Amino acid sequence: MQIPTRDEIAAAAARIAPDVRRTPLWRLPGAALGLDCAEVWLKLEQLQLSGSFKARGMFNRLRSLPVPEAGAIVASGGNAGIAVAAAARALGVPCEVFVPEVSSAAKRAALAALGARVVVHGAAYADAYAASVERQRETGALAMHAYDQPEVVAGAGTLAAEIEAEAGVPDRLLVSVGGGGLVAGIAAWFEGRTRIEALEPARAPTLHAALAAGEPVDVEVGGVAADSLGARRLGTIAWQVALRHPLVSTLLDDEAIRAAQLRLWRELRLAVEPAAALPLAALWSGALKPAAHERVAVVVCGANLDPATLA
Amino acid sequence: MQIPTRDEIAAAAARIAPDVRRTPLWRLPGAALGLDCAEVWLKLEQLQLSGSFKARGMFNRLRSLPVPEAGAIVASGGNAGIAVAAAARALGVPCEVFVPEVSSAAKRAALAALGARVVVHGAAYADAYAASVERQRETGALAMHAYDQPEVVAGAGTLAAEIEAEAGVPDRLLVSVGGGGLVAGIAAWFEGRTRIEALEPARAPTLHAALAAGEPVDVEVGGVAADSLGARRLGTIAWQVALRHPLVSTLLDDEAIRAAQLRLWRELRLAVEPAAALPLAALWSGALKPAAHERVAVVVCGANLDPATLA
Repeated sequence: MQIPTRDEIAAAAARIAPDVRRTPLWRLPGAALGLDCAEVWLKLEQLQLSGSFKARGMFNRLRSLPVPEAGAIVASGGNAGIAVAAAARALGVPCEVFVPEVSSAAKRAALAALGARVVVHGAAYADAYAASVERQRETGALAMHAYDQPEVVAGAGTLAAEIEAEAGVPDRLLVSVGGGGLVAGIAAWFEGRTRIEALEPARAPTLHAALAAGEPVDVEVGGVAADSLGARRLGTIAWQVALRHPLVSTLLDDEAIRAAQLRLWRELRLAVEPAAALPLAALWSGALKPAAHERVAVVVCGANLDPATLA
Repeated sequence: MQIPTRDEIAAAAARIAPDVRRTPLWRLPGAALGLDCAEVWLKLEQLQLSGSFKARGMFNRLRSLPVPEAGAIVASGGNAGIAVAAAARALGVPCEVFVPEVSSAAKRAALAALGARVVVHGAAYADAYAASVERQRETGALAMHAYDQPEVVAGAGTLAAEIEAEAGVPDRLLVSVGGGGLVAGIAAWFEGRTRIEALEPARAPTLHAALAAGEPVDVEVGGVAADSLGARRLGTIAWQVALRHPLVSTLLDDEAIRAAQLRLWRELRLAVEPAAALPLAALWSGALKPAAHERVAVVVCGANLDPATLA
């Protein structure tokens, strides 16, 4: 596993340009969000194709490597699965998505609507994953990982390149962390030129636990954002990035996450999933307090939610 | 009533700059929306303070005129009422909002939460309006109209100035029409330099009826967008604008409007009210067919909806 270089991220951006959306960067004075900092830059990545940033990495992997006749295969009931299915459909390749029995009927239907073959297997994610590995050996399909493959990380990093191209280097950048593919791509792009704040649910603290243990370790996962940030363990690429570029981890409880999600809808009319609300939860709860002069970039990473949960 | 000049709109923009949000202009290739035109520019004005473009006009009026001790008064159960209440609160002036008995408890609660005194009067909007006029005579409060006052129209026009400053003059601009305040402000800004397409619900065709009759006339109003586009008659300022700058009116049925609203959520993760979906309804239904070279601006005007209606 290697940390993507800036050149590799720039190449990924060019590669996926025909496929993904360049999402808006909404620059607001901090006061517009009730904050004391100079500016907040909201990268509205929840408007990305497939409803999350994941599409960037999946298109990049599918466009970087030879795709066998069997197409792509992934184990995920969440945003990664949706992104692989959407990318495979757009590129005209077959796609199998393995999900556990606990996955919701709505998510399976969404995957099937994107043309994916949905395979329900096992009680937990690990069971579905094991079955997908076995199936991949049979078919030779291109295995897609939700966050721990170089092309996936480089694809995620293209989001950081867009922020810099549009507004420059922020004083600080806030991003949610699950398996760490997104934060890894962003940190690889900025190479220490900005302070990167990793926000994690207290109930799914993969980076926090890795930093404490000195290596990625399994954690218990749960809570309101587990759907998207429920990886059991930080990815190895993300860990290498964390060793090279300091990542500060801040934990947030479910109450703060949910409050920020509702406030984003009520005050800004941004419909986002809980995982995307962590950066604002950190700012609104006071867990992070940028200085008055700071320009703070915030990644709003996904909107795959039932909108009724905002009512 | 006078059509605002470009200078007046520019002055309004400077006046309300501390109050309102500069909303994102999202530029996408037409293909990203499944359309054949070169570009679509989505002005994401549903992210405006108060959840619709109305805040621009209300702040402009409150900042342009002396506000009496009694504050501001308006009759509206919809976006105009919310915008007046939000602007009055931000500027620290009292506010009375008259709504008819048919208005929902949710809307009254939203107005009250913004600090407005909510007065429920009469069976229909016209009754609430009449009561507000009487009350205004008693208190001397500043009367705010939803769409037919020069400061309100000039405020709406600031949205067009932002589009031009950011991306230039589009080949065509699509905007929903109810009372006509927004289209009037936009047309006043562009002064014939772009083709302005007014989109109206077939069940609330104020501009269409005015163009047919040669003057504003009362129409029956109903349908899925009546909440926001349910004015009975085109405003006099909008009519003067229509006489000076050609406005093309296209009618859309409820089915097309609702389909576009759902598609905006499903494919773009934009949560918008039905009134804001008319431009995309026109494009996706084929009612409007821009040429391959065109750059088409679309105003996404509001998001005051129950998000559960998108589920």
